[in-house]
Amino acid sequence: MTPGVREDGPAHRLEAQIRHDLRQDRLEAARDGLRHLSPAKAGRFLGRTEPGSLAVVFRLLEKAVAVEVFAALEPRQQSNLINGLQDEDVQVMFAQLQASSQARLLDDVPAEVAQRLLGTLDSDQRADAGRVLGYPPGSVGRRMGPVLIELRPEMTAGAALRALRDSGVPRRRLRRLVSLPVVGPGHRLLGMVELTVLASAAEGAGVVDLMSTDLETVATTEDDEAAARRLLDEDLLALPVLDETARIVGVLTLADATRILAEEETEDAARSGGSEPLAQPYLSTSVGRLVRSRIVWLMVLAVGATLTVQVLEVFESTLEEMVVLTVFVPLLIGTGGNTGNQAATTVTRALALGEVRAGDTLRVVGREFAVGLSLGAMLGTLGLVVTGLIYSWPIGIVIGLTLLSICTLAASVGSMMPIIARRLGVDPAVFSNPFISTVVDALGLILYFFIARAVLGL
Amino acid sequence: MTPGVREDGPAHRLEAQIRHDLRQDRLEAARDGLRHLSPAKAGRFLGRTEPGSLAVVFRLLEKAVAVEVFAALEPRQQSNLINGLQDEDVQVMFAQLQASSQARLLDDVPAEVAQRLLGTLDSDQRADAGRVLGYPPGSVGRRMGPVLIELRPEMTAGAALRALRDSGVPRRRLRRLVSLPVVGPGHRLLGMVELTVLASAAEGAGVVDLMSTDLETVATTEDDEAAARRLLDEDLLALPVLDETARIVGVLTLADATRILAEEETEDAARSGGSEPLAQPYLSTSVGRLVRSRIVWLMVLAVGATLTVQVLEVFESTLEEMVVLTVFVPLLIGTGGNTGNQAATTVTRALALGEVRAGDTLRVVGREFAVGLSLGAMLGTLGLVVTGLIYSWPIGIVIGLTLLSICTLAASVGSMMPIIARRLGVDPAVFSNPFISTVVDALGLILYFFIARAVLGL
Repeated sequence: MTPGVREDGPAHRLEAQIRHDLRQDRLEAARDGLRHLSPAKAGRFLGRTEPGSLAVVFRLLEKAVAVEVFAALEPRQQSNLINGLQDEDVQVMFAQLQASSQARLLDDVPAEVAQRLLGTLDSDQRADAGRVLGYPPGSVGRRMGPVLIELRPEMTAGAALRALRDSGVPRRRLRRLVSLPVVGPGHRLLGMVELTVLASAAEGAGVVDLMSTDLETVATTEDDEAAARRLLDEDLLALPVLDETARIVGVLTLADATRILAEEETEDAARSGGSEPLAQPYLSTSVGRLVRSRIVWLMVLAVGATLTVQVLEVFESTLEEMVVLTVFVPLLIGTGGNTGNQAATTVTRALALGEVRAGDTLRVVGREFAVGLSLGAMLGTLGLVVTGLIYSWPIGIVIGLTLLSICTLAASVGSMMPIIARRLGVDPAVFSNPFISTVVDALGLILYFFIARAVLGL
Repeated sequence: MTPGVREDGPAHRLEAQIRHDLRQDRLEAARDGLRHLSPAKAGRFLGRTEPGSLAVVFRLLEKAVAVEVFAALEPRQQSNLINGLQDEDVQVMFAQLQASSQARLLDDVPAEVAQRLLGTLDSDQRADAGRVLGYPPGSVGRRMGPVLIELRPEMTAGAALRALRDSGVPRRRLRRLVSLPVVGPGHRLLGMVELTVLASAAEGAGVVDLMSTDLETVATTEDDEAAARRLLDEDLLALPVLDETARIVGVLTLADATRILAEEETEDAARSGGSEPLAQPYLSTSVGRLVRSRIVWLMVLAVGATLTVQVLEVFESTLEEMVVLTVFVPLLIGTGGNTGNQAATTVTRALALGEVRAGDTLRVVGREFAVGLSLGAMLGTLGLVVTGLIYSWPIGIVIGLTLLSICTLAASVGSMMPIIARRLGVDPAVFSNPFISTVVDALGLILYFFIARAVLGL
């Protein structure tokens, strides 16, 4: 999968050369090198550039490339850049963005910058941007693209293609034409027809026969991630977006959906690792921002872990009587943590893919209880035997029983957390981690000492 | 993001009704309900079905839908199903799969089943499947689709569209026509042209002017995930696949790439949580398989954790002198684990997105060292103050210094592991987790006791 990635290809050598030129302040040479990068490659080059040099590099790009690169950056990167660019340049690039991209950038800059940016738009553009901003954050309305062409059911395939040819859609928007809406009077949506179907059909075939009428649609106010997920699950190329009167007001394409979910993935990956998402490429993020993205969760987790301190305090006398019990503590709670983590990761992923729903709680926890029991039985037996041979059989029994109960507990709790999070409307990846470590660690220790006292008669 | 997902929509009620009918053995009613599910929905319904009932449900699907559903299932699900179906049904569905899908299924079934399946193909199909199997697993050759049409540079846009109309590409393959190859003599690739561009251009426009010649291409032997990632990064709709003589032999579409990466994501998610990937939806996985997917890693991690047992043994005398030192052990190594996990998760994600490369090791570890130091300083100060006030200032100093050093160590180690894994050609998500917990826990404990002995004069 990941092995064997070619890392010394010509593209990388070119980039290394450009960086070298930049470090040596040879700006003309750097500008020349940058000219050989496609807009996509240039965008990624920027993503690997230290924050302080972003604007310098960006100004070296050719104007046309710069516009395209800017449009493809994440809002956070765009707002970082704006600070270092001239107002006129910013104005040109901002005006060329799609209204939904403009709205996302406006959300990410300080209020006075947002005002200034809005002021650079003409009244039509400002109306478009305003309309997008009227939708709640995280909704489909904020991420959809415009309706670029509307076909009529009475058209033939040939007529439809001619209409497409005459529509004057700008080159950079052409890709959004993969799936075209067919509307009746009043922009009422009747069906969608894929361009590949249209282009392969006989000239005289009727659009009404080619279109798909068993339609998935989405409302402007729906959650963008859920809509994106639905688009992928139902294997669609585009989802028509309707307003309350069932008129088509926008289109969410597969490309839009992929982008939404990729951002979601990165956020989830960050959160499940216990940090706030960076919203920009790693190497272009400052150390200060990295620290800020992690300190909160680290503190929360540490505070949660003080629960273990209190539990151990309660059992301090037991520990004094048998100090050897201490040496197993990290092993036991570590195993509990790993087991809980396995369960939580599996269920979180299944929730994200829609394989599991909040109504499946009993089914899921029941399975995980059985899984934890089996894992705990296997590990417990191994622990019993190894510890029994090295230390003593009573201690072996304590370790074995503790592993059995900790694994069962951890898998059950670990599987429950993401579902509880979903019901509370909280991100499962965020919710699970601290709760699992805190609950499983503390309860696990309590179990350990109860078992120890019972078996060893302390 | 995840909140507010509608879980009681009509689709879900229909599915609940179908499941109810199945449980009551009302197969005719279930068949009727299934008829109302689109192929995509039916596939997902199967993904939420217990393994034992898979074949029963599948046989209730209409033949045409069943073929399409079968083609969209993961290889693991397909091989599970095959066991419960009649040979003739299997034969029909297998023959309709694309050669690359056939190969993937053949890889996933026992040898005798594979032989039987191959035997059902005609000689052309067997040659195609054989060709695919000739490529190494994990390569582009195994995942690419066929070249469905080739355009000539001297064609006009109108002529190209007519060629498309006459090409007779089956409906289920039409989507692969988003980006079309333009070839010269001997199938030598000259360029690619997007269908949206072709369809919007004037009838007489020359394909040679519309096509893109600054081409990204991929070889059949390249890694499929790297190719998929490249396709997405370069914002392409399709990647032409070439053999050693630069002839085009296949096409990897955006849809192929998305599927490859989605499977990769699920595998990575499983591995970073410490389990083997399931390769099929969660609820249709038996408890036994869930246990098997986790026991190995759990054992490996537990064995790694025995290192902590040995470290604590070494310092047992110190613990006897000051039992209170025990109560902080889970808190300290837990914090170390969390810090290491944050760093590893961030770097792993950055590696996966291509934002960081193996050559960036020094840069990354340097940043993470600084991040760990800052986080450790903040947590250490908090720990010093709280512990100092509750217990004593010497103990506070021990806790403070330990937190400082553990966080610095953990962030550095945590960031290094994924990159080392990449260099060794191992999956970073797999490699990092056990190494971080083992190394950071054990080293952290050693640091703790050294600091305690130094400060407290033990």
